Amino acid sequence: MSGTTATMCGAFSQCRSVLVTGASRGLGLQLVKDLVKKSERPAVIIATARDPAAAEELQRVVKEHSGIHVVTLDVTSQASIDAAVEEVSPLVGAEGLNCLINNAAVGGSINLKTVTAEEMLKTYESNTVAPLMVTKAFLPLLRAAATRGSGMGIHRAAVINMSSILASIQLNSGALAEFKCYPYRASKAALNMVTRCLAVDLESEGILCVAVHPGWVRTDMGGPRGELSVEESVSSILSALAGLSEKDHGGYLDYAGKTLPW
Amino acid sequence: MSGTTATMCGAFSQCRSVLVTGASRGLGLQLVKDLVKKSERPAVIIATARDPAAAEELQRVVKEHSGIHVVTLDVTSQASIDAAVEEVSPLVGAEGLNCLINNAAVGGSINLKTVTAEEMLKTYESNTVAPLMVTKAFLPLLRAAATRGSGMGIHRAAVINMSSILASIQLNSGALAEFKCYPYRASKAALNMVTRCLAVDLESEGILCVAVHPGWVRTDMGGPRGELSVEESVSSILSALAGLSEKDHGGYLDYAGKTLPW
Ligand SMILES: NC(=O)c1ccc[n+]([C@@H]2O[C@H](COP(=O)([O-])OP(=O)(O)OC[C@H]3O[C@@H](n4cnc5c(N)ncnc54)[C@H](OP(=O)(O)O)[C@@H]3O)[C@@H](O)[C@H]2O)c1
Ligand SMILES: NC(=O)c1ccc[n+]([C@@H]2O[C@H](COP(=O)([O-])OP(=O)(O)OC[C@H]3O[C@@H](n4cnc5c(N)ncnc54)[C@H](OP(=O)(O)O)[C@@H]3O)[C@@H](O)[C@H]2O)c1
Repeated sequence: MSGTTATMCGAFSQCRSVLVTGASRGLGLQLVKDLVKKSERPAVIIATARDPAAAEELQRVVKEHSGIHVVTLDVTSQASIDAAVEEVSPLVGAEGLNCLINNAAVGGSINLKTVTAEEMLKTYESNTVAPLMVTKAFLPLLRAAATRGSGMGIHRAAVINMSSILASIQLNSGALAEFKCYPYRASKAALNMVTRCLAVDLESEGILCVAVHPGWVRTDMGGPRGELSVEESVSSILSALAGLSEKDHGGYLDYAGKTLPW
Repeated sequence: MSGTTATMCGAFSQCRSVLVTGASRGLGLQLVKDLVKKSERPAVIIATARDPAAAEELQRVVKEHSGIHVVTLDVTSQASIDAAVEEVSPLVGAEGLNCLINNAAVGGSINLKTVTAEEMLKTYESNTVAPLMVTKAFLPLLRAAATRGSGMGIHRAAVINMSSILASIQLNSGALAEFKCYPYRASKAALNMVTRCLAVDLESEGILCVAVHPGWVRTDMGGPRGELSVEESVSSILSALAGLSEKDHGGYLDYAGKTLPW
């Protein structure tokens, strides 16, 4: 198997299983919608949400397309994470999980005047701690997938952390500095660091780790002034993910695959 | 006043007041020791510690040298921060606070296997949220100082955040990646982002904000294998601080004044 996957490196047809957190709306929901419509779609698509029953559009997509597994996952609850791993394990089987997309997050415009310790901690819990704890919990499934492939990419095993251009410390100046959001920026810069720590620690096992900025997108979080529709963003993101390889390991890319400065 | 301070920009003789957090031991204590011994020392040196009575060496230094004000400050407690501002306000008077050194922090070797959500949050609270909330609370005193000077530097108003080379996402590879400490690295990368956010927001008021890496120092945190003694580190740091100006605003420097990559 390894010989062929290495040459086919990256194509979504070679990625058997994908799990998306925060699939109730926004980019997470669109990722599921696009994946299921691909001609050579991943066989196992796992859409997670903290309250699937309340995620009406996700339920509609699930009814229209067969083969989407909906799993309850509140990323800030260890009990919920552990239960999700239990549920996902038989869904992916011995072949493990190829691609974990840590997409769930919280936003919010909070400036120097309005920022509080509580808000800083709450945002960090959702946006930084949760992706780390989710990744840790799903590591056995990612490792199972990694032992069956060669090279690096979503055909083997990958952790995709949804970052943001607002995570870039370097780019926090000029026009981009107009977005005031202390808790969000700090949490996403820390997520970039966590991504890099994971990249260092998981490299020898062949598990790719990258931070991805989806663009400024018209979702509940991005607001109506966003530059991209969810369709545009997710279509680009999926192309970028399909092309990931060793060279991207530990990197920070935007939806078009362009490297951003930390 | 502004004309002369602008030309004398940076010298510690022009910095009337300094406040150091975490002055009970390590670099914080040494900063106080060195400042008080300077021939042209700041008139008002405020050494803060969460439990001053237990800080025996600090008490000894205070007895030997006049003019060190010891103030209780647990940086993770808003009540303690507010009480400290009340106490410091009359000490600095209408001239305000020139230099706030956010030095207090917690460390710890914690790898992917041992990291927990609790440890991530606790470390973030001390190392990222606390410097932000301390800076916010002392802003009126920093602003009072800033209105009386020109240019940028410790002669006017400055926030110095003790960062670390382990905060550099870029440098987290190779030999430096051997230091496994998810909570610490994530918290200090986030502190770099907070420093940058503060730099953006306080620039128009003339308050300088920088992140400083003190070197790998033989303190309780740095351990006995550190490359520098506390004396060597602090002597370099104080020279670097004395030389800070507009060009360093929003930057990330090491003890020798060299810029580090984010
Ligand atoms: N939109 C942009 O312009 C933009 C730009 C840069 C980066 N990003 C990043 O892209 C990702 C997706 O953003 P988005 O625009 O789609 O945001 P969104 O529309 O606000 O959706 C956020 C999603 O995260 C979920 N979520 C939040 N906390 C959760 C938790 N504790 N457990 C499980 N799910 C949770 C939400 O679930 P509920 O429905 O249950 O609340 C929702 O599905 C985020 O990581 C965001 O930071 C977005
Ligand atoms: N040493 C190094 O090699 C190194 C390298 C890079 C960066 N740094 C940074 O340099 C700074 C000083 O480090 P260090 O080596 O001097 O560390 P240290 O020897 O461990 O001392 C830490 C200091 O922080 C104080 N502190 C911790 N939590 C506090 C709280 N909630 N309220 C008030 N004070 C608190 C401690 O007070 P108690 O005595 O009450 O515990 C102590 O005074 C830190 O920001 C550290 O991250 C150090």
